Amino acid sequence: MSIFSKYEPLARSLAAVTHGGGRNPFSVVIDHPISSTVGVIEGRETLLFGTNNYLGLSQSEAAIEAAIDTLRTHGVGTTGSRIANGTQGLHRQLEERIAAFFRRRHCMVFSTGYQANLGMISALAGKDDYLLLDADSHASIYDGSRLSQAQVIRFRHNDADDLHKRLRRLDGTPGAKLIVVEGIYSMMGDVVPMAEFAAVKRETGAWLLADEAHSVGVMGEHGRGVAESCGVENDVDFVVGTFSKSLGTVGGYCVSDDDGLDLIRLCSRPYMFTASLPPDVIAATMAALSELEQRPELRHRLMDNARRLHAGLNAIGLRTGLQASPVVSVVLDEIDEAVRFWNRLLDLGVYVNLSLPPATPDQHPLLRTSVMATHDAAQIDQAIEIFAIVARELGLGQ
Amino acid sequence: MSIFSKYEPLARSLAAVTHGGGRNPFSVVIDHPISSTVGVIEGRETLLFGTNNYLGLSQSEAAIEAAIDTLRTHGVGTTGSRIANGTQGLHRQLEERIAAFFRRRHCMVFSTGYQANLGMISALAGKDDYLLLDADSHASIYDGSRLSQAQVIRFRHNDADDLHKRLRRLDGTPGAKLIVVEGIYSMMGDVVPMAEFAAVKRETGAWLLADEAHSVGVMGEHGRGVAESCGVENDVDFVVGTFSKSLGTVGGYCVSDDDGLDLIRLCSRPYMFTASLPPDVIAATMAALSELEQRPELRHRLMDNARRLHAGLNAIGLRTGLQASPVVSVVLDEIDEAVRFWNRLLDLGVYVNLSLPPATPDQHPLLRTSVMATHDAAQIDQAIEIFAIVARELGLGQ
Repeated sequence: MSIFSKYEPLARSLAAVTHGGGRNPFSVVIDHPISSTVGVIEGRETLLFGTNNYLGLSQSEAAIEAAIDTLRTHGVGTTGSRIANGTQGLHRQLEERIAAFFRRRHCMVFSTGYQANLGMISALAGKDDYLLLDADSHASIYDGSRLSQAQVIRFRHNDADDLHKRLRRLDGTPGAKLIVVEGIYSMMGDVVPMAEFAAVKRETGAWLLADEAHSVGVMGEHGRGVAESCGVENDVDFVVGTFSKSLGTVGGYCVSDDDGLDLIRLCSRPYMFTASLPPDVIAATMAALSELEQRPELRHRLMDNARRLHAGLNAIGLRTGLQASPVVSVVLDEIDEAVRFWNRLLDLGVYVNLSLPPATPDQHPLLRTSVMATHDAAQIDQAIEIFAIVARELGLGQ
Repeated sequence: MSIFSKYEPLARSLAAVTHGGGRNPFSVVIDHPISSTVGVIEGRETLLFGTNNYLGLSQSEAAIEAAIDTLRTHGVGTTGSRIANGTQGLHRQLEERIAAFFRRRHCMVFSTGYQANLGMISALAGKDDYLLLDADSHASIYDGSRLSQAQVIRFRHNDADDLHKRLRRLDGTPGAKLIVVEGIYSMMGDVVPMAEFAAVKRETGAWLLADEAHSVGVMGEHGRGVAESCGVENDVDFVVGTFSKSLGTVGGYCVSDDDGLDLIRLCSRPYMFTASLPPDVIAATMAALSELEQRPELRHRLMDNARRLHAGLNAIGLRTGLQASPVVSVVLDEIDEAVRFWNRLLDLGVYVNLSLPPATPDQHPLLRTSVMATHDAAQIDQAIEIFAIVARELGLGQ
């Protein structure tokens, strides 16, 4: 028997998706980018509406030049873990820059955003502790909870009352209670009611970790995320984030005011047993952070674009989430329909993400779009027009 | 009670290590590299003998230039997962290059080496399967086994007979049996007896995964690792490796001839839910791979240097492993002694890794050195001389 025989149902699902000559939606190749908003796919210039590149900084000239300068002086990698030979002066500088940006005392930088959640959650929650996770949490949060020894309790998505009820049942039990929420949930773009969660945290004495991967650079007056926009940053004990969305590079981090954070460097296996980020990635990230700080107009343009796309897709009769956010997902009923819709969008020059159950909330297939500060109005209108054409072809929408 | 109170014993251990003004050995900062073999630490040029940068390719001019060219055309990151917008033409090219290097049909590239082990082991071993792990396995292998649902069975380090005995007890049980070994074990530099493990695998019908992180570019006529040097590549079903050692960059991979590997792209969470490697890292890695292929003299120089360092440390009466390998660890008895030894080496201009129990085999503290093809004889002799000076100061060795 093959070690792969357990994946025969998966192979059949994939065959159903690509049946009749459709593409494999999970192996799209962008030959190369033309700009932050346009890439070459199947030899054609294609509008990119599914990248999480919210500020367009993956193509930042300042970040590119910073990376080039650092390659010349530092080489292409560190070949070491942060706790061995993998901490260079630049890694410390970036940690200080990120801590200062968040007005926190401490920062740890990880080699990927996935490893930041894995490393923080597995180390913070010990075997006598409780992890309280939103039911719609990202895979990196669930995987971190599997690596930890803690007991895992799920609460209903974005429902602070349900969390409160579950925490009350733990009254009097020893061990820390760590609540984990996300700023913006990546599938539907919905925003956490952070003030409600902060109130539950204060009332119950729990600890609060907020993964602001999709909200840093997007929400808050200074771009510090949903906790800033809700005015409850003091109630968030740990902010986890990533460099691979609004900052355009790769890597992850955690900031905190708690001096204990430094101990995590010595017990978080996903931090200790991995090579550190190459120096040029660190330099590019610092340059991108400067742009994020010095160009608030990027955030304003992003939200204007989000509203334009959200309104336009609703106007043609497609179903989306209620809030205009940089992630706007079109909700469909049938997988077949979603697969055909996604293929036709790409035929006509628009790339979006196809998200299929069981990875989606409520088991609905999604055409997940994300918008950028660098999209212009014409690009957004063109994408909406192409959505309208395909919707008509498929007998959907208006 | 603080969420960090479970780490009070760790804080006390660290305080004991830094007692009396010693450095924290796990937070050394290399201000910047001067070359592959020399870095600036505490303002002084320091010989690097603990980097895993076996071929010195972190400072490869060809890799630096490839990265610079690609930054100009592709930007600083992809901001996407491999299964969404994060596969660019370059990612596919690198996968083809690595598959061709190993003469295998398939390759998957991961964002870190840690995630390659995590992603392969957790996806290959399902809930009805068995994972057979060497007791001295790397943390990424143990963490991958925690993420998987499989039953984990450990066998004695490098002991194929012990493995065989444990596999025989599973005769007749359903489910796949996946053996995981490493080519070179990173703590002591000892080499796996791969032919013995291959024989057990053939006899029992188990599957064999070899993590050749420390042996690719180092062992084998073409640098394909221990399986090549032992002539048993056909028995290894999956080779996992990393870019952050002999190739000088960051990232990981798995190669296999089994067509099932492509399905792993759709079920391996550490592959699916993380941003892909930046294009310039991919380009640098391809350039480094070309050097590895075209400059076999690097491997010969590396092994000459390994023998010189191993013989020199033994000649001054220090205890090391039996084999000369690119990792040469000096075994000490007391943690205090190891900490003082490590601090004095750094005072005198030599950086090595300090490895303390419980992370070490047999609970002995180690001064873990690793050698490079780019060290010259004078640098190695100087390092040995400084080891001799410190050994005399501490009343150790001859």
